[in-house]
Amino acid sequence: MSEIKVIKGGITAAQGFKAAYTEAGVKYPNRKDMAMVYSETPCVSAGTFTSNVVKAACVQWDMKIVKSDKPMHGVVVNTGIANACTGQEGFDACEATAKAMSDKLGIPVDSIAVGSTGVIGMQLPVDRLVAGVNAMCDKLDSSIENGTNASIAIMTTDTVNKEYAVQFELGGHTVTLGGMSKGSGMIHPNMCTMLAFLSSDIAIDKSLMQEAVSDVIADTFNMISVDGDTSTNDTFILIANGLAGNDKITTKNADYDTFKQALSVVCEFLARKMASDGEGATKLFTAHVVNASSKKDAKVLARSIISSNLSKAAIYGCDANFGRFLCAMGYSGVSFDQTKVELFFESKAGRLQVFKMGVPLEFDEEFATKIMKEEEVIVYVDMHDGDAEATAWGCDLTYDYVKINADYRS
Amino acid sequence: MSEIKVIKGGITAAQGFKAAYTEAGVKYPNRKDMAMVYSETPCVSAGTFTSNVVKAACVQWDMKIVKSDKPMHGVVVNTGIANACTGQEGFDACEATAKAMSDKLGIPVDSIAVGSTGVIGMQLPVDRLVAGVNAMCDKLDSSIENGTNASIAIMTTDTVNKEYAVQFELGGHTVTLGGMSKGSGMIHPNMCTMLAFLSSDIAIDKSLMQEAVSDVIADTFNMISVDGDTSTNDTFILIANGLAGNDKITTKNADYDTFKQALSVVCEFLARKMASDGEGATKLFTAHVVNASSKKDAKVLARSIISSNLSKAAIYGCDANFGRFLCAMGYSGVSFDQTKVELFFESKAGRLQVFKMGVPLEFDEEFATKIMKEEEVIVYVDMHDGDAEATAWGCDLTYDYVKINADYRS
Repeated sequence: MSEIKVIKGGITAAQGFKAAYTEAGVKYPNRKDMAMVYSETPCVSAGTFTSNVVKAACVQWDMKIVKSDKPMHGVVVNTGIANACTGQEGFDACEATAKAMSDKLGIPVDSIAVGSTGVIGMQLPVDRLVAGVNAMCDKLDSSIENGTNASIAIMTTDTVNKEYAVQFELGGHTVTLGGMSKGSGMIHPNMCTMLAFLSSDIAIDKSLMQEAVSDVIADTFNMISVDGDTSTNDTFILIANGLAGNDKITTKNADYDTFKQALSVVCEFLARKMASDGEGATKLFTAHVVNASSKKDAKVLARSIISSNLSKAAIYGCDANFGRFLCAMGYSGVSFDQTKVELFFESKAGRLQVFKMGVPLEFDEEFATKIMKEEEVIVYVDMHDGDAEATAWGCDLTYDYVKINADYRS
Repeated sequence: MSEIKVIKGGITAAQGFKAAYTEAGVKYPNRKDMAMVYSETPCVSAGTFTSNVVKAACVQWDMKIVKSDKPMHGVVVNTGIANACTGQEGFDACEATAKAMSDKLGIPVDSIAVGSTGVIGMQLPVDRLVAGVNAMCDKLDSSIENGTNASIAIMTTDTVNKEYAVQFELGGHTVTLGGMSKGSGMIHPNMCTMLAFLSSDIAIDKSLMQEAVSDVIADTFNMISVDGDTSTNDTFILIANGLAGNDKITTKNADYDTFKQALSVVCEFLARKMASDGEGATKLFTAHVVNASSKKDAKVLARSIISSNLSKAAIYGCDANFGRFLCAMGYSGVSFDQTKVELFFESKAGRLQVFKMGVPLEFDEEFATKIMKEEEVIVYVDMHDGDAEATAWGCDLTYDYVKINADYRS
């Protein structure tokens, strides 16, 4: 398999992709709050979307496009207002936004995905969105800086922007895959996560790209949680324009495997980054479950550990209160025998076993605290019940999470 | 149906029940940390227990007793240590505790339930428990004060003790039902909640009492949540000694209905109290879902609303951010059409509609804040999809919840 090399940049890293951003004043003045991604060359698309039955208007708009066989040219995103629970007026807003981009760039209206994030149950100011689209179309540019600014423009409560790009070789052709994503509250993805957009110049069959996306999302974005709340707006879209010139991937050959591996690297990076930048978070909180009876059980257990409020509070307090992790495994819905379980804490500072075959171990509290003070704390669980494993990523629960969300809207 | 009258007292209110408490020094000195309930007259028992597969040793001990047809005489409870994830040593501690009470009072060892609450994954100091049991056996007393002190002795992070008692007439005989419970973290009951013990002097068939308990728990204790974490120790036990002298209830007659109604009144009171005293809580947060397509759906929707961290933070911030409630309904697993939904905020201060048939309404923010500043805030949701309804109770998410749980163990 070809080497996968990390490069600078994000959504504009791949050939033929341009980006733009603007201050449209969607909800607040003087804030980058719209971003655009555009490929003149038509793209194939793949995506996954929230499983919340209350789907935002933009999610419904995008699902229709991604599920069709029509080519895509780009995405236009706003922050501030989520365009969820907005009825017909919300759908009209999606269409007006896409139409503005369509008119300006001479591309079909249904080749444009629309993304929104922010307050639910509020109507979008369509005139300001359209003005923002018009301004962005004039500023589209393939520079790395523009890609970075686009990743900044889609931030809401995020404290850092999230972008990543990799390159790999397919038959002598350099293929690039990059993307951006944003969190950082209402993050408990099911099918996908809050906004993530990726672009690539790879040539690949649409259905194979969708299959790779579905597989990779299941192990990356769907394995993170900030607060247990599955958003109305979760959207992941990857578009690919084929400009890399590789032999088009039409079967699950070695090139497909390399692409999928690269996709996994990018998605895992963005997912981890989203978890560690969860609202109010001070730490990345990782659960690694090994030797479970099935992949499904391993995933449920790992997710349950990192989703538990009590576990998250213990991680914040650097408290090796391992009973909370076992408790969260116990109510996860997975059946298991606690007398077979071993539990360890891990970080850069070391590794410590605290529970062995149903019995608590005596341990050095000082060393435990030292382990838990690191930026990433791993709870490692050996189920001794099979050979399946899974990893999930979350963050600690802090005062700031409460502060951010007690007055987010106002 | 006979009138149900609230009376003073709790676990000792019914005839023939005595209680005691002590400072056994289970985990901390100078703290009431053990309680005992005893009826010389043998009792029938009914109970529900945690669905967490990691069940505390005491839960496993109690389940065996309640499921058997053997008479029960009482309960002995400690706080500080939960006796969960403790292996064989944990079971031995249950037996030693029950045996001490058995020896002292001359009752069978398997007529005594054992309850524990506190830190998971730590062994109990059996010598101190046994000394505590011996001390309590000497102080058993049927006074209301002793009942109240028992309800205080089972508190952990609770800020108030929780007890309640009612009386009703069955064929000229006065029947009394009373009880006590404790919260206030790791509360997301599934089958039952954290410790709750009830006693009655009613004469009733064991299997009918169990049926009434299972029905009532499903609509009361199982409809509260503090933090989404289903404990390893959830235990609800009701024991009844028949001393009221009523015609023994052996069929689902009018007396059964009266008893069930009284049980519902006591359980709802204790459940609401537990929710409003959730760790760090400043408010009772109630979700009332009406006109749902089934009872099951109504319950899932109501529970999802009050369990959402983002909804709970909005309630804390007095922010009428209703999209979060719709979002929580959307990911609950229940399928529904948002264009049929209406949503209101209610409290003593008034009632306000904010969402109607898929569309957000303009509303007076000042009035909304006024409504949300009350001690109990109700989110009222009309699904327009059937005639089933359900109520769930939770609390707000506050800085203090994080504070309490970031260093609970130490």
